[in-house]
Amino acid sequence: MASLTTLSKEDLEDLHSSLWNIYKQEQTKDLHLNMSRGKPSAEQLDLSVELLQFPKSYTLADGTDARNYGVLQGIGECRRLFGDLLDIPAGQIIMGGNASLNLMFDTLAFLFLFGTERKKPWADERAQGRPVKFLCPVPGYDRHFTICEELGVEMIPVPLLSDGPDMDLVTRLVKEDEQIKGIWCVPLHSNPQGVCYSDKTVDTLASMTTAADDFRIFWDNAYGVHHIYEEVPLKNILKACEKAGYPNRCYYFFSTSKITFPGAGVSLIASSPDNVKELLGHMSAQTISHDKLNQLRHVQFFGTSENIHNHMTKLAALLKPKFDIVLQKLQDGLGASPPVASWSHPKGGYFVSLNVFPGCAKRTVALAKEAGVTLTGAGASYPYGKDPKDSNIRIAPSYPSVGELSQAMDILILCVKLAYIENKLGIQPK
Amino acid sequence: MASLTTLSKEDLEDLHSSLWNIYKQEQTKDLHLNMSRGKPSAEQLDLSVELLQFPKSYTLADGTDARNYGVLQGIGECRRLFGDLLDIPAGQIIMGGNASLNLMFDTLAFLFLFGTERKKPWADERAQGRPVKFLCPVPGYDRHFTICEELGVEMIPVPLLSDGPDMDLVTRLVKEDEQIKGIWCVPLHSNPQGVCYSDKTVDTLASMTTAADDFRIFWDNAYGVHHIYEEVPLKNILKACEKAGYPNRCYYFFSTSKITFPGAGVSLIASSPDNVKELLGHMSAQTISHDKLNQLRHVQFFGTSENIHNHMTKLAALLKPKFDIVLQKLQDGLGASPPVASWSHPKGGYFVSLNVFPGCAKRTVALAKEAGVTLTGAGASYPYGKDPKDSNIRIAPSYPSVGELSQAMDILILCVKLAYIENKLGIQPK
Repeated sequence: MASLTTLSKEDLEDLHSSLWNIYKQEQTKDLHLNMSRGKPSAEQLDLSVELLQFPKSYTLADGTDARNYGVLQGIGECRRLFGDLLDIPAGQIIMGGNASLNLMFDTLAFLFLFGTERKKPWADERAQGRPVKFLCPVPGYDRHFTICEELGVEMIPVPLLSDGPDMDLVTRLVKEDEQIKGIWCVPLHSNPQGVCYSDKTVDTLASMTTAADDFRIFWDNAYGVHHIYEEVPLKNILKACEKAGYPNRCYYFFSTSKITFPGAGVSLIASSPDNVKELLGHMSAQTISHDKLNQLRHVQFFGTSENIHNHMTKLAALLKPKFDIVLQKLQDGLGASPPVASWSHPKGGYFVSLNVFPGCAKRTVALAKEAGVTLTGAGASYPYGKDPKDSNIRIAPSYPSVGELSQAMDILILCVKLAYIENKLGIQPK
Repeated sequence: MASLTTLSKEDLEDLHSSLWNIYKQEQTKDLHLNMSRGKPSAEQLDLSVELLQFPKSYTLADGTDARNYGVLQGIGECRRLFGDLLDIPAGQIIMGGNASLNLMFDTLAFLFLFGTERKKPWADERAQGRPVKFLCPVPGYDRHFTICEELGVEMIPVPLLSDGPDMDLVTRLVKEDEQIKGIWCVPLHSNPQGVCYSDKTVDTLASMTTAADDFRIFWDNAYGVHHIYEEVPLKNILKACEKAGYPNRCYYFFSTSKITFPGAGVSLIASSPDNVKELLGHMSAQTISHDKLNQLRHVQFFGTSENIHNHMTKLAALLKPKFDIVLQKLQDGLGASPPVASWSHPKGGYFVSLNVFPGCAKRTVALAKEAGVTLTGAGASYPYGKDPKDSNIRIAPSYPSVGELSQAMDILILCVKLAYIENKLGIQPK
């Protein structure tokens, strides 16, 4: 297909008519295709179903009965397994419940309720009309932004470049404004763009001068072992912070939500020894322990960190055909018209980020919806749900089957073109 | 044995010498007996071990795959099971994670961070030097008090009488002071006294006039089905609040920590429809869902609320001999000397509350500790760990075996007597 952008007004009108007829036909099919959330498919979950037969025994190495109360920090066996996987000392890891999101919310809530390092609770500043601000690399993960919005954290978007956030901008902002107390980072295969942070980005984040002396990096390594096309290394942020003289700067989050079961996996937070001590202090008022039997299930199911990598290879084999088809369909359908759409080429993770012609994202998503294809809401990957260019659309290929995905992508591409032509011709949405 | 209180000074001195010799002998035995926490015994946990073979299937009644994301409020199957058990509509129940304590902390944290019914966050008042106050029936559960202390809630102790908190005092205080925004209640088989709230107490709590229009009852029904000697009914507080015109007054907590596994059970919070909606709003920023597979395990293991009651009967059969021996030993050892000690006669729950001669609790616990018997720290059942009379000691009979318990009780009784005589004779602790 020739580029849409070289067509005359008349040709565009003709094309719109013919595409619209195809679209109306699609609408009659009563499809229900969903590419909205990063949900694993049933086939992926089946790879972990043996986990449900564990634990085979429930006595820990130190003799503790894992069925009973206690062990707030999480069982040593589990902290060592993930410490080995992530190159973090087991003593600097706290196992959480079934969701790292919960740990992120709680950690930010603790900062609001109690402050850190004996400094003022962030809620006090909020109450005094000096809201805490966070830098939000965009596009990013909507649930990070929801946590901020819920707690009244003012979000400042910063562009996410090919090797991490725009660090020139980030370093300038954090140096100038002492109300900027944090930044959200998804350092590997970021949601939704698949960006992987370079060593230089990690070092700069760890060493930059910040006006706030309680500045914190929320390091959500959600896709830390989720390579599909290529294994990407990631510099150790905790070590980098320690080396730079800011050992308490980073909270590191990880979970098995997209390794074993979303909602029934295990999560962890890791940080400096001082931060771990401080967190455990608050947590000791919050709970007696998280679910040690589920920690033990994971330990007995995986055994070693190498087996986690092997498991990820199997998951990648299920995901790759889905990413292949999304990328191939985009190339075939839109590759000839660069201004109409561009998209990410992730090496792993869960998403493809599609940028349509400015001003066309909401319309594209709405058109797709009306033809039975549910996408993440346009704007969701920006703070307050506001994409200033109305351009970004997140594609989540994991949940549908390859067949459904193929069908859904055809409709999405059709909608991208329709929205572009409507925009160019000034056609009001029907 | 004759009453200690009728002995002459000389007789007391002789008795002290002989008891002290016995005590020194006990010390040589290098015992390690623990009556400090309400931990179930291994035999109790064994009754639930089949639970670990569940879930047998993971597709919910509505077709949802319980292994995947979603269902923030908790699976309908589980909410109906516990709703049936507790006489609460399933729609008014939110399933939590593995610990109701976590729900209590989070609920109070939400009030601090966000307020309720669009009123000011409680943290704002704290920041403005007007701390929130909670009424704390004493003696009570130390972890409730720890939550308050952590969040900076000022605790006001109120006496716990035989049918609930001293409601004359409670109604007066809440009417006078708008900073009193809550009360902790363990309405059945309370920790540590085994008090069960009368209908009148429930009705008064539900209907009393409070100066604070965001006053909240934290209703921790931890022992709601934990009857041992006698089944005790409890009036439905949520219905009472609704009837009294204060539908949003009460947060109701429950868990299976002492039904199935501490740390690997399920918990719930129940409240009015408005409160449930408000809580779910905050929770939707905090997590995607709690562990649905564990909810399903419990549903498949129990099946019906009747089976939960049957299960509790088996647990009670394991607990009863332990309570029997504690009560018998206390009667045999201290029954003749009423001023030296008095104790609760619980109908269920997990504790016996022992009141020793005023000024002797700390010394008794210290003596026991040095003879190898660990008790809950004296004062723990009071806000800030301060028992004004230094009199209350909590006995937790569940964890040790009957043999260990018998031995531990002999030592405890010995220490009660020694501490009393030391106190009477003005003997400085050796």
